[in-house]
Amino acid sequence: MNTCVIGKGLPRIDALPKVTGTAPYTVDLKMPGLIYGKILRSPLAHARIKSIDTSEALKLPGVLSVITGKDVPQNVFSFYQWLADKTILCTDTVRYVGDEVAAVAAVDEDSAEAALALIKVDYEPLPAVFDIDAAMAPGAPLVHEDKESNVTWTVQRLFGDPDKAFLECDYVVEGKYVTQQTAHTCMEVSNCVAKWDTSGRLTIWVNTQAPHTQRQEVARLLGIPKRNVRVISSIMGGGFGSKLVTDMKVPIASVLSKNTGRPVKIVNSRSEEFCTAKTRYPYTLYLKTGAKKDGRIWARELKVIGDTGAYHDKGPATINFASMMFGTLYDVPNMRFDGMLAYTNKEMGTAFRGFGNPQFTFATETQIDELAAKMGMDPLELRLKNANQPGTETTCGAEICGCAMTECMLAAAEGIEWDKKRKEKGKNGLRGVGLANMVHTGGGGRFYGYNSAEAFVKLSDEGTVTIITSALDMGQGAHTVMAQIVAEELGVQMDDVNVISNDTDLTPYDLGSWGSRATFMNGNAVLMAARDAKAKIVEAAAEMLEVDPGSVTVSEGKVSVAGSAVLHDLAEIIEHAVNAHGNPISGAGRFVDKLPEGYTIPTAFTKNIPCFAFGTQAVEIEVDEETGEVKVLKVVAAHETGTTINSLMAEGQIEGAVAQGIGYALMEQVIRDENGKVLNDGFLDYKIPNIGDVPEIEAICIESLGTNGPFGAKGIGEPGLVPTAPAIANAIYDATGVWLRELPMTPERVLRALEEAKKST
Amino acid sequence: MNTCVIGKGLPRIDALPKVTGTAPYTVDLKMPGLIYGKILRSPLAHARIKSIDTSEALKLPGVLSVITGKDVPQNVFSFYQWLADKTILCTDTVRYVGDEVAAVAAVDEDSAEAALALIKVDYEPLPAVFDIDAAMAPGAPLVHEDKESNVTWTVQRLFGDPDKAFLECDYVVEGKYVTQQTAHTCMEVSNCVAKWDTSGRLTIWVNTQAPHTQRQEVARLLGIPKRNVRVISSIMGGGFGSKLVTDMKVPIASVLSKNTGRPVKIVNSRSEEFCTAKTRYPYTLYLKTGAKKDGRIWARELKVIGDTGAYHDKGPATINFASMMFGTLYDVPNMRFDGMLAYTNKEMGTAFRGFGNPQFTFATETQIDELAAKMGMDPLELRLKNANQPGTETTCGAEICGCAMTECMLAAAEGIEWDKKRKEKGKNGLRGVGLANMVHTGGGGRFYGYNSAEAFVKLSDEGTVTIITSALDMGQGAHTVMAQIVAEELGVQMDDVNVISNDTDLTPYDLGSWGSRATFMNGNAVLMAARDAKAKIVEAAAEMLEVDPGSVTVSEGKVSVAGSAVLHDLAEIIEHAVNAHGNPISGAGRFVDKLPEGYTIPTAFTKNIPCFAFGTQAVEIEVDEETGEVKVLKVVAAHETGTTINSLMAEGQIEGAVAQGIGYALMEQVIRDENGKVLNDGFLDYKIPNIGDVPEIEAICIESLGTNGPFGAKGIGEPGLVPTAPAIANAIYDATGVWLRELPMTPERVLRALEEAKKST
Repeated sequence: MNTCVIGKGLPRIDALPKVTGTAPYTVDLKMPGLIYGKILRSPLAHARIKSIDTSEALKLPGVLSVITGKDVPQNVFSFYQWLADKTILCTDTVRYVGDEVAAVAAVDEDSAEAALALIKVDYEPLPAVFDIDAAMAPGAPLVHEDKESNVTWTVQRLFGDPDKAFLECDYVVEGKYVTQQTAHTCMEVSNCVAKWDTSGRLTIWVNTQAPHTQRQEVARLLGIPKRNVRVISSIMGGGFGSKLVTDMKVPIASVLSKNTGRPVKIVNSRSEEFCTAKTRYPYTLYLKTGAKKDGRIWARELKVIGDTGAYHDKGPATINFASMMFGTLYDVPNMRFDGMLAYTNKEMGTAFRGFGNPQFTFATETQIDELAAKMGMDPLELRLKNANQPGTETTCGAEICGCAMTECMLAAAEGIEWDKKRKEKGKNGLRGVGLANMVHTGGGGRFYGYNSAEAFVKLSDEGTVTIITSALDMGQGAHTVMAQIVAEELGVQMDDVNVISNDTDLTPYDLGSWGSRATFMNGNAVLMAARDAKAKIVEAAAEMLEVDPGSVTVSEGKVSVAGSAVLHDLAEIIEHAVNAHGNPISGAGRFVDKLPEGYTIPTAFTKNIPCFAFGTQAVEIEVDEETGEVKVLKVVAAHETGTTINSLMAEGQIEGAVAQGIGYALMEQVIRDENGKVLNDGFLDYKIPNIGDVPEIEAICIESLGTNGPFGAKGIGEPGLVPTAPAIANAIYDATGVWLRELPMTPERVLRALEEAKKST
Repeated sequence: MNTCVIGKGLPRIDALPKVTGTAPYTVDLKMPGLIYGKILRSPLAHARIKSIDTSEALKLPGVLSVITGKDVPQNVFSFYQWLADKTILCTDTVRYVGDEVAAVAAVDEDSAEAALALIKVDYEPLPAVFDIDAAMAPGAPLVHEDKESNVTWTVQRLFGDPDKAFLECDYVVEGKYVTQQTAHTCMEVSNCVAKWDTSGRLTIWVNTQAPHTQRQEVARLLGIPKRNVRVISSIMGGGFGSKLVTDMKVPIASVLSKNTGRPVKIVNSRSEEFCTAKTRYPYTLYLKTGAKKDGRIWARELKVIGDTGAYHDKGPATINFASMMFGTLYDVPNMRFDGMLAYTNKEMGTAFRGFGNPQFTFATETQIDELAAKMGMDPLELRLKNANQPGTETTCGAEICGCAMTECMLAAAEGIEWDKKRKEKGKNGLRGVGLANMVHTGGGGRFYGYNSAEAFVKLSDEGTVTIITSALDMGQGAHTVMAQIVAEELGVQMDDVNVISNDTDLTPYDLGSWGSRATFMNGNAVLMAARDAKAKIVEAAAEMLEVDPGSVTVSEGKVSVAGSAVLHDLAEIIEHAVNAHGNPISGAGRFVDKLPEGYTIPTAFTKNIPCFAFGTQAVEIEVDEETGEVKVLKVVAAHETGTTINSLMAEGQIEGAVAQGIGYALMEQVIRDENGKVLNDGFLDYKIPNIGDVPEIEAICIESLGTNGPFGAKGIGEPGLVPTAPAIANAIYDATGVWLRELPMTPERVLRALEEAKKST
């Protein structure tokens, strides 16, 4: 391996256009004939549509098309087609405040907005349910009348004999944990332009994390062949999972474009973004953990009920994925897991950084501390006793290859001065320290039966390189990582590398950027493509220098021949190949990561995960006894990266995720009134951490061996958010002696917990 | 070979968007912050710039940048860098009416135009030369003062011993022939948008026939690395050679963009297009031909002087190329060729459909008729006696592999009813028939020492195909041809094929679309890519069906196994490969056509040509004795296509070229006043054939064997224009007994020739 590029904290290749405001986002797109679409959304959480009158809207000057449910293809959609429950526009029933009822295209945004106000919809209100208790109560109103129940999906998993095992435990703790609905709060709202041209081809510019699967979904929604759809995703102002599954504005803009023969742009208002762009799934978790007196965790049982909202999306996948992590974090020999999802009349959930794992980890990692407290054991010690070790296989089948779980714990504890700070309790007012572990996939999953990526590189006669990859950069820096991998392998400068991506016509089929998979999957494909090109360079050099190919070495941008001190520039070789022989040099790579022999999609469980990334966060906090406010003083986040490709960006990913984790832990929540309407639909009311809320974060990248990522790298996109909330909760207990079991841990909740604790003593 | 697609007259894949006006051309491009550039051009043919005052222009509201020669990189440019003579903007001297003097960028076109009028330029007029006689006269004013002479380039070639051979001839004819300056008259004018972004990367959208070489040229002009330049060519409204070499508006727009930080659009007015977008080179040709009495052409001598205009461009190449065709059309054992180029103070010439060949062929093919007349031999018979035969090599080294020269002559003669019409002379007033032969490259040339192309195809899980090719569609239908080749090879429907092209970041390095090379070169690469993908389909099918790959056949879109009657859809196999294994299927192809062993660029001459395409046109015309007007009644154009890929488009290419040939023969000419200013700079004054001028054209595609084009195809982009003018001239002689030796053969010239003939009898 060269050491010019990998591991360095290089600036992002797209930094300059982004910070100077010249980088074009989808919303900046202009084109001839462009018109604007707006969506009329339901003001009621549950109602029957008795009639819609669009005649006045159609009369408004500048309005070119008005559509309702009957004007669009009637295909029923969901990410999982077997759970299909959503039409492009509602036909007879609306199921949450924000549901799509009608849409308008007009020559400007103001006319479109004015036309919405002229559409008359006659609703008959229906009873609604807003939480899982109401939704699952006997005789509850059905969110979907055609279903038998609001419970739409269940899953069970069993390892060992937990009933027997709990009887063998010396200590058992159990509790109910509640997590909230949070918004992705991307700086760039959901938006798209659709252009349905005269040849019947539909081009969609949309800020999506998965252009190829979005293409399939749009084709399915509109009932047209995939070949007629092209999806182009420009640079993005944040995704975090919210831009994986097709938003209905895309087929709506497409139909409006077809009707008018004009390209149609639809952009969410910030309010629409909060009310309709989907959220993290709120889970209610019932958890029980038992240990033997030597500290061995012996039995676990978890029941989780997910609130899926009004429609299906990624609900089953998040619970399934999180259950794999639940089964993997510690190797517990006896485990029972029950999961279910229930409909409510709310905005639906979707993928969100961590994908169910932050919810689970909040419950499991605070309960570990509760167990330690009950046992009178240091919670770090309890965790170290139960830590996974490299080269083992857990009860639930997880193959722990490269694993730096113990190193992460020790690094985080050292960073926060664990022993010293634990002893100081009481000396600094209500200060405390806490820590929590996590495990996550380091490279997506084989949830389709495989996990694969393809890439191409082509070299110009100047020795510059173009990478064609499906690695999608939603702001996380995937393009920079791809460029570094190629620059490293071919020994060229970062400036010499250009990345082409994000257009389904150009790039190879790909599952998209999610599950921390881009570095691992696309990175591997890009590395293989660079190696293929390198082999051709060796061949060309051997021909040019009239030597045996076996004697040629390419290293750090120079070509040399064994036994000679002469170094040739890469560009010199390529120029010779191109200009003397018309032989441009390019390379192709395909990385396929299949399920192990004998496993299928239903049986694979943790075999779905190509590699695991462990991590530990330790925090120091201070509780204000008067207000209940929790101030985070310091976070030490030690995460396993395999090999760090870009230290600056890896640390940036961890820091950003920790900030998001602090928001999740302490302040963020979508709040609704009694009719299901979102009350905090803007950044004035929906509080995310600002610079004053984010403390010093010490991000530590722990390198480990044994993974098959590019140069040994693992994905680091999501882990940083996963253990922050339980680490804070554990620190609150350390400071105050009270357990917080519901997120967010707002001042009100902390104050109430402190008061109840006082009362009971 | 399948027979589903190849040879069929299928509609173009881009027909619908084009005819409905929705296809976006570069000129339609909009983007955030777009501003507009205009160029101040010299009103004088030759002058010294004493001073330029831009201060008033800069004060005009809306004007963002004004540049002159001192504000741009001072690199001196030509297509051939060894002939470099042009700067981006003139610094001290202007050399033709239209030369670039200054440029303005403003928020709208009107402000930019108004600013031009406020730039004060003080010129000192210099004496100018407007034709080669004046330019080559002793003591003539020098167009470039730093050169020794206006003669800038010469070439000589000698085969056999022509001096001795002429003495052995029984018949000798000689004459002077003059061809004119004509405009390409593309429906879409030259235009571009340049965007120099904050990361230092320059993106250029420009209607170019050669994005990759244009990228190199722009980098050279601006003195920046090629890697910082991206060239994107959208669909084009005609090229014909005018859009091969970089127009100065491209570096001008680039500098304006760099200065303002905004994307800059510059669009030619129609007048600018006529006065500055370059023309066909006017040649003066001195030709002598000798034959033995049995009809064998025994000796030939040609001296040609090209008028290159004020700057260099493709002048040497056109003369070199045409001399190869001159040496190849008939195998004459003794030949001398002298070529030279001279500067004049006029708009410069460039590539134009036929590339020097129409000029040469006008002289050579009318002189064959003159020779036949002198010998009392039927001109068709004389040509048949001297026709090239397949599998021979000519004196000048041309390898005549597949060759249907005789078949073309016989088909054209039959189509025009040659024997009958020749005998009818005098019966139908001044009607006559004439014919002419031509030969042209059928696949570009190895002028860079090689001729190469690369392509990729990728298949979606639906079985649809995306082609990534550099085949540039300038309106000639190259994308449709590429789609047909792939559809044929993989047996998919045309609707299932999509073509990606024209972006230097995306497509492989390529020399561009010129010299009738796209079908031959890019077509071969695309075919090889499709074959590569097909091999992978066979592999995937064998795996899926659990059979030996050797027993799998892919034919007409179906996959079958030897011994089984079951047909599997292609899509079924691909879907299996993708969805079961994450193995998308793609293919790569590279076609390299090198000079034969032992030849180099200086010695190769006709070895440059990968295959020859012969053709014959026969015409019937009528001369109006009162007005001198020549009316073309019918054209039969028999052209060798090897294998016709698309009969509709091949015939369309021939018909369009014949129409352009009629314009060249009878009416088109750029006319200047005595100061060098173009007088006919619009379609009202510059006459091109309209529907009333174009007669019935019978286009006959003659298929022939022996070429290595895709499925045996040859290029047919240019040939149709080459022999039209001499065929008409020969028909005029047949009708009237007078020889026209200057183009265009306008009514005035015909009338004058008729009058002179009357006087001399």
